[in-house]
Amino acid sequence: MRCHKCPQRAVIRMRQHRLALCKDHYPQWFIEQTQRFIEKYRMFTHQDRILVAVSGGKDSLALWDVLWQLGYEAEGLYINLGIGGEFAYSDESQQAAQKFADQRRLKLHIYHVEERRGESVPAIALRTHRGRQKPCAVCGLIKRHTMNQMARQLGFSVLATAHNLDDEVSFLFGNLLSWNLRQIPRQSPVLEAEEGFVRKVKPFIRFSERETAAYSIVRGIEYIEEECPFAEGSKQLQYKDLLNRLEEQQPGVKLRFLLGFFNAMEQGFIHPIEDEQGEVILNPCPSCGQPTSTGDLCATCRLFEEN
Amino acid sequence: MRCHKCPQRAVIRMRQHRLALCKDHYPQWFIEQTQRFIEKYRMFTHQDRILVAVSGGKDSLALWDVLWQLGYEAEGLYINLGIGGEFAYSDESQQAAQKFADQRRLKLHIYHVEERRGESVPAIALRTHRGRQKPCAVCGLIKRHTMNQMARQLGFSVLATAHNLDDEVSFLFGNLLSWNLRQIPRQSPVLEAEEGFVRKVKPFIRFSERETAAYSIVRGIEYIEEECPFAEGSKQLQYKDLLNRLEEQQPGVKLRFLLGFFNAMEQGFIHPIEDEQGEVILNPCPSCGQPTSTGDLCATCRLFEEN
Repeated sequence: MRCHKCPQRAVIRMRQHRLALCKDHYPQWFIEQTQRFIEKYRMFTHQDRILVAVSGGKDSLALWDVLWQLGYEAEGLYINLGIGGEFAYSDESQQAAQKFADQRRLKLHIYHVEERRGESVPAIALRTHRGRQKPCAVCGLIKRHTMNQMARQLGFSVLATAHNLDDEVSFLFGNLLSWNLRQIPRQSPVLEAEEGFVRKVKPFIRFSERETAAYSIVRGIEYIEEECPFAEGSKQLQYKDLLNRLEEQQPGVKLRFLLGFFNAMEQGFIHPIEDEQGEVILNPCPSCGQPTSTGDLCATCRLFEEN
Repeated sequence: MRCHKCPQRAVIRMRQHRLALCKDHYPQWFIEQTQRFIEKYRMFTHQDRILVAVSGGKDSLALWDVLWQLGYEAEGLYINLGIGGEFAYSDESQQAAQKFADQRRLKLHIYHVEERRGESVPAIALRTHRGRQKPCAVCGLIKRHTMNQMARQLGFSVLATAHNLDDEVSFLFGNLLSWNLRQIPRQSPVLEAEEGFVRKVKPFIRFSERETAAYSIVRGIEYIEEECPFAEGSKQLQYKDLLNRLEEQQPGVKLRFLLGFFNAMEQGFIHPIEDEQGEVILNPCPSCGQPTSTGDLCATCRLFEEN
């Protein structure tokens, strides 16, 4: 197949966009599209300092690369979770992220969970009841906590994560299956800054995994392909698999599902439900200083400090 | 496996209820559950006259059977759509429904679309643009129209359809995928009567297809097993298949999805959006007299009369 913009061979065909592009026009299109999403959802401007959460995988390195090329002031944050196994997952991922940063002379901040907190994420997942039940939930909690903490401490105005279309639709699908009334309204391309919380943005939510992977490959980014060993068999992966089957039958259905949801939110079709107590009162956690509704240690510090 | 209530062999095991029952206790449980749903959702009482829409399939004959056993005043309505093919689908289904009614000395009303309207549903599906695009949608429109019309003409206070859990979750899933903001809030166990519209209830929406089939088999109901030949490859069947895969991985997920949705509605999480014109004005269709917002012929009469 030929590129729709020049006579070269196409490297990717996107059925839902009725578009095929070559190795030169694809990254150009991908970068332009990202800029359009950033503007459309008013994510940030060239005046902002942006912290990009990088995992060493295709999505986050692609995002950092695109923001760098678009001239944004973007530094990276790598959280070393201490996940090992046969393949030293966390250390290898850190190296990939560091190499990427060094090649572009970009600044990468490292947060090593075990060094800072005295215990790795897998160790907590094994020690705590909640961790044994839902290791991915505990890991997500620690990551969100750490990203917000680091962004604030380092003085960034925006935290960018590289969640893609597949991530978002599988979260949305899972949240709708269980009608998680708290989470559904929080799923948005932008979460505005609130007292103690930095502004959070997701510039890649319109791109599929296939599209971010193709960008990274074409751009020669050396990313870690391995999935986290803990993710195997997770519900998120089940949902992705199921939504991919549907996408084959109805090309474009994933994007329509997500955009239809944003539209339903904008039109006021979905109304966030107030907590029964009404307004939630946030106080600083006595250990880390981040806002929490618990009245004592925040959920993350409690994980590390309960024994 | 043994029945949970007696030493007999179980004929069905329901993982989501952690329950296995024999050929005697299963129909008893099934009938009691139906009565509970009828009361829970305040569908109707023994003072109501109920018209049951029957197709000759397992769900609708089971529903009529259960209502009859519970002592409700329930008559049947069979709509002959004129669907033929190698297997004379509509005529065979009508015979099954008639035989069921005769065995129980129940009254079955027949509405023969071609005799009354001069044209069968497949003929309309072939002749009209809309029918060629979406034959199931056109058939659904004609059936809903006819059921309401007949219920009103025959003086019934309630129209009962035998939609089961699988039907409801696949509709809900499809409506959420495309964020059909008009349809989502209308998916409910009860649609109250409005000017020109009879009260509509769905007493079987908590039962899976497997459960209604097991009831019909145990009770010796001779139902038509064939699916409508037009349904093959439809999106609804794709969604059912996909949700069944999920149910295997997470037993009970379909029921939780539907009940969670009802709860979200009750809590006001979902707000029906008013039409842009505000209140919809309904006038009687000059041909059939049923309420319509078109200002002229209703959508169904237009299908039959446009040439």
